[in-house]
Amino acid sequence: MALPVSADLDEAMVTSALDRLLAATSGDMARVNALILERAESHVEMVPELARYLIEAGGKRMRPMLTVAAAELFGKASGAEIKFAAAVEFMHNATLLHDDVVDESDMRRGRPAARMIWGNPASVLVGDFLLGQAFMMMVETGDIEALGVLARAAAIIAEGEVFQLAKTRDLATTPAEYEQVIRAKTAMLFEAAAEVGAMAGGADEAGRLAMRAYGAELGCAFQLVDDVLDYRGESGAMGKNIGDDLREGKMTLPLILALAECDETERSLIVSALGRQDAPSETLAEIVAIFERYDTLSRTLERANKNVLAAREALSELPPSPMKALLADIAEFTVLRAY
Amino acid sequence: MALPVSADLDEAMVTSALDRLLAATSGDMARVNALILERAESHVEMVPELARYLIEAGGKRMRPMLTVAAAELFGKASGAEIKFAAAVEFMHNATLLHDDVVDESDMRRGRPAARMIWGNPASVLVGDFLLGQAFMMMVETGDIEALGVLARAAAIIAEGEVFQLAKTRDLATTPAEYEQVIRAKTAMLFEAAAEVGAMAGGADEAGRLAMRAYGAELGCAFQLVDDVLDYRGESGAMGKNIGDDLREGKMTLPLILALAECDETERSLIVSALGRQDAPSETLAEIVAIFERYDTLSRTLERANKNVLAAREALSELPPSPMKALLADIAEFTVLRAY
Repeated sequence: MALPVSADLDEAMVTSALDRLLAATSGDMARVNALILERAESHVEMVPELARYLIEAGGKRMRPMLTVAAAELFGKASGAEIKFAAAVEFMHNATLLHDDVVDESDMRRGRPAARMIWGNPASVLVGDFLLGQAFMMMVETGDIEALGVLARAAAIIAEGEVFQLAKTRDLATTPAEYEQVIRAKTAMLFEAAAEVGAMAGGADEAGRLAMRAYGAELGCAFQLVDDVLDYRGESGAMGKNIGDDLREGKMTLPLILALAECDETERSLIVSALGRQDAPSETLAEIVAIFERYDTLSRTLERANKNVLAAREALSELPPSPMKALLADIAEFTVLRAY
Repeated sequence: MALPVSADLDEAMVTSALDRLLAATSGDMARVNALILERAESHVEMVPELARYLIEAGGKRMRPMLTVAAAELFGKASGAEIKFAAAVEFMHNATLLHDDVVDESDMRRGRPAARMIWGNPASVLVGDFLLGQAFMMMVETGDIEALGVLARAAAIIAEGEVFQLAKTRDLATTPAEYEQVIRAKTAMLFEAAAEVGAMAGGADEAGRLAMRAYGAELGCAFQLVDDVLDYRGESGAMGKNIGDDLREGKMTLPLILALAECDETERSLIVSALGRQDAPSETLAEIVAIFERYDTLSRTLERANKNVLAAREALSELPPSPMKALLADIAEFTVLRAY
């Protein structure tokens, strides 16, 4: 497997790109986090309870960091990037709440999903509330063009999720259709997060397009790696269960590639577990062995690496700066976490 | 029961206010309907299938009519009101899709709810898509102030729904809490629909505030009447089942007023059916008899009539015009449909 990065790279180096981005954005991110908590408030107790449970479980805050980093990159940060970053994180959290209802997931970020505690109805409605609050924050920036970028993203993300739903357990799903799904459901928010950050930072048209392309490629890499980790991660590494995607009938690339090449016996085994919440762990292990046989997890990561290269390429026209170097490193980090 | 309208009013007169509003807004509403169908399109087949199923089932389109009527009232309609009206209807339909999942409703507008055909996941996600498309249309108007009115409405509606959820089967729910719920979950969208219509029509601050107050009062009356019809409507009049609210554990005013006055035996009967999807029709009939005994359905309608008077009062400062007279009549129609 040819990778642009050494697979035996030191663990400390891998995390350090993220650590450096955390450090470089820490001032802005403290303001973003404060705004997030403030806007999750409500006189209806259940709203902040549920929202904070999800928000405080953390996650890497990759998307809002991307927004403030992009603004910083162009140097004329107006303050709007703080609101856009919080709005992007609210959009993301609204999606997570709705996804967990759609997928009937019981775990999220290593804890019981909110719906297991407050129920599906509250998860749907608090998601809607967060989306409304996200648009309120966007309005406060007064930047209707950037608002349009995020509104379009909201529609495309939902459309991508419906497309994924329509493809559930569809054995004929192609790699191109899979790419269409992840470009919409995941990469779109990375793309919009980076683009509105660039806009808030005073980027010109070329800079805006560069960050948009960077975000889209980064988001694709991110999802491809997630889809590998779903089968290969150590239990709990994703804060979810191993094999969740298969049990939910989700047609991800490692599975699509395997179905294209495996024999009838292997195919039957896969089909017997696909979309079955009660599929036994032993069957899952056999299916992962099939993936290893056809090298589909590594091939999925190679695909992710192509996106990483494209993300770095997107940055190439921008003037050199420490932040630009950091964003390039972060693209690599996205894939390195799979090793 | 003292009512500002004659209870033996001719049926033809009742419908004629709505008919006259339909006629007065028919040109604009044809454009709104075309835009609605256009924006429900998607390359993902399930999206327009589900959206059209819901949208074509109709409903009275009260909210978008309110937007175009308000714009017409101030005479300087800019075209933005068409987009705002379609956006308002999308917001409404997104709410319906999510509500049916939350309430586990099997009927909507006289047909099986979308979730009974396409499932809960698709209903959640297509709702999200419609909300995204709604914001896209608002962005296209370029009017960020009006967009802010609708974004705030989206957050408040969801917050009201969560509040209602938190109060499910809560016997201590007060009339004031009920009013808080309906002002948020229902009246807020009427209020915003009227306000952005006024803005698109070039209203001054006073005109905008008048229409906002009118919409809020109209929306409250509308919900109060819905809550009466849930117990008293002929089967199918609402396109839902009689007693759905009680079976869902919803604390509406007819129930709250009855609980405050009934004796222990009556209370026990109500509690035995509250929130029980399988509560028998006989029990429902006995509970409606309790409501009649304490006159709570009529008292709820009296409350609605107060909102109607307030809605008409809100219009009083505006210059006389045929549209103003029509809007005043429509406020009365809202309650008359309960007789």
